[in-house]
Amino acid sequence: MAFGWIDEQAELRRRAGLVRTLRPRAADAPLLDLASNDYLGLARHPEVAEGAARAARTWGGGATGSRLVTGTTELHTELERELADFCGFEAALVLSSGYAANLAAVTALAPHGSLIVSDAGNHASLIDGCRLARGRTQVVAHADPDAVRKALDGHGAAAVAVSDTVFSVDGDAAPLAALAEACREHGAGLVLDDAHGLGVLGDGGRGAPHAAGLAGAEDVVVTLTLSKSLGSQGGAVLGPARVVEHLVNTARTFIFDTGLAPAAAGAALSALRLLRREPGRAARAGAVARALHHRLTAAGLEAVRPDAAVVSVRAPSPEQAVRWAADCRAAGLSVGCFRPPSVPDGISRLRLTARADLSGAEIERAVQVIGDTRP
Amino acid sequence: MAFGWIDEQAELRRRAGLVRTLRPRAADAPLLDLASNDYLGLARHPEVAEGAARAARTWGGGATGSRLVTGTTELHTELERELADFCGFEAALVLSSGYAANLAAVTALAPHGSLIVSDAGNHASLIDGCRLARGRTQVVAHADPDAVRKALDGHGAAAVAVSDTVFSVDGDAAPLAALAEACREHGAGLVLDDAHGLGVLGDGGRGAPHAAGLAGAEDVVVTLTLSKSLGSQGGAVLGPARVVEHLVNTARTFIFDTGLAPAAAGAALSALRLLRREPGRAARAGAVARALHHRLTAAGLEAVRPDAAVVSVRAPSPEQAVRWAADCRAAGLSVGCFRPPSVPDGISRLRLTARADLSGAEIERAVQVIGDTRP
Repeated sequence: MAFGWIDEQAELRRRAGLVRTLRPRAADAPLLDLASNDYLGLARHPEVAEGAARAARTWGGGATGSRLVTGTTELHTELERELADFCGFEAALVLSSGYAANLAAVTALAPHGSLIVSDAGNHASLIDGCRLARGRTQVVAHADPDAVRKALDGHGAAAVAVSDTVFSVDGDAAPLAALAEACREHGAGLVLDDAHGLGVLGDGGRGAPHAAGLAGAEDVVVTLTLSKSLGSQGGAVLGPARVVEHLVNTARTFIFDTGLAPAAAGAALSALRLLRREPGRAARAGAVARALHHRLTAAGLEAVRPDAAVVSVRAPSPEQAVRWAADCRAAGLSVGCFRPPSVPDGISRLRLTARADLSGAEIERAVQVIGDTRP
Repeated sequence: MAFGWIDEQAELRRRAGLVRTLRPRAADAPLLDLASNDYLGLARHPEVAEGAARAARTWGGGATGSRLVTGTTELHTELERELADFCGFEAALVLSSGYAANLAAVTALAPHGSLIVSDAGNHASLIDGCRLARGRTQVVAHADPDAVRKALDGHGAAAVAVSDTVFSVDGDAAPLAALAEACREHGAGLVLDDAHGLGVLGDGGRGAPHAAGLAGAEDVVVTLTLSKSLGSQGGAVLGPARVVEHLVNTARTFIFDTGLAPAAAGAALSALRLLRREPGRAARAGAVARALHHRLTAAGLEAVRPDAAVVSVRAPSPEQAVRWAADCRAAGLSVGCFRPPSVPDGISRLRLTARADLSGAEIERAVQVIGDTRP
């Protein structure tokens, strides 16, 4: 029977305690949220919701076609200009998701004959970009500029190194300045996914590349998502205008996809303007993460020191991680639970995200619940 | 210099007349639109815009995380239930784009050791799905069930055939019943991308698989986009509940992507309800396409007979296609212009899309302009 093998895989998942199920949430769920990527607490900000609503009323429910046909509105252009300006790059290109942005950037910048040097901890979308690209991929040790240097050594043709700026599982940061140096010694380009840096790191939330002095560099390309700090949906690629023009002409996930919905563009633009007006939100997200880490560690839990707004707490096993997260939920706290195969090292953990709008009392309550429910 | 090779490619594109540029449109552009995929004219329908606005106000600007963490709202579940019910399948899974839905379906259903039989005219997203999948891909002649049968012959392990239901470039339909028969003879699954069929073909717009009697079949999986007939953004995979559960657990573009923005889910749901209430819109889109084809042919133009709502008109060269589309635009008519490398056969064409809400006078005007500006 067609698809018969699916049932065997399902049975294996059940036995390994690795079944995933969707848990629909209500609009007014009374949970304290330390699970979303809404780092600045903007997703439900009235200005952001109103930005979405206004854009839908003005432009309609969808972009109606590829960005190259009917799918580019003046709103898309406005968002691209303001994103590029905020992060300090010459140009920006908005796509329908961060996943699509990473596929676009990696495939377009790694042609046949080129080398891609990819960090072992990179996000699935960067890995899929490497798999789709015509260039050859070499995976190197996590956050190791010397490994990148060594991989680039002796490769004569075009090359690019690819890395998250902040890794999504443990929340640790990549050594950006040293990575850029290794690339420059070899004339290689550097593609950085700043999904978890934008809005949290850098001056007023301008992101990790800006903080590392790489904004506007002609050999650096940054990908972003609009769905985390900016509380919306979509992705973007930032870089020199010639790189963006190259993507417009060659990136399949740009050319063959419907443009980002106007409502998502409008929500992201409203969030970006709000962040410019209230730059303190960025620093506050980082401070909340450090406070969380400090108190969790003081309570005897094994937590990774956060470089941005993600705080990762080790769990003994996948089953115990699931039970721990469920116990937190029962006590009114929503936390992420990352298990194989979503984690590169096979270690299960609770993944907590700091939001800029968490109060001191909420941080206390979260730490209390996590400590009380520990396996 | 990093990315130096980009300039050489740009120069080659310029010389070949293949440069693509973005053309932002205004909200009140006075163009007659025969270029978008807004087949039912719903993208700017007040109910659809209001569906987006209401969802943004209720749920926020974004889904805030992966569908598996915080990104599933009750609105997503509602949309999935109504989509599955409308198209006649057991279950549905909503993703952030049709592109992501195709990557999810093909990669999840073609494991290591399996065979994928892929139509030569398939959309880029299905092709990228084949490239990412662990199974081996065999490309077969366009719309040729015997070629599919021959490719499946002798393959002992899991296999799946993959096809658009309506091909986006020429608007021709795949022979679904014969494809299903070829697959069933070999115990193979069938994955159908109904992006251009939903809302146009089948009883009240239930899509091409429904029209072919394949709705709800245990060996058929359908992918959709919410960005064409439903005037929004996003994609979906429809099929047996066990297949959807398998995707929830294994599809990388589902697991590692932020959930579809509530506004997009809300807009699609409003459009779907509107279509159920006004099922005549579907037949009207097809009738407009046939009228367009009839009059273009009568005017001596080489147009492909439409099976759905896309009407393709041959152009002598890429340069002349671009000029033709520009001349149409100057005369107030927006048409698509497809050129290499976006066309599988290297033939440039104008691509016209019929909208259910085009009036007889608008059809006349479009044919007049296209005839007057022909190269």
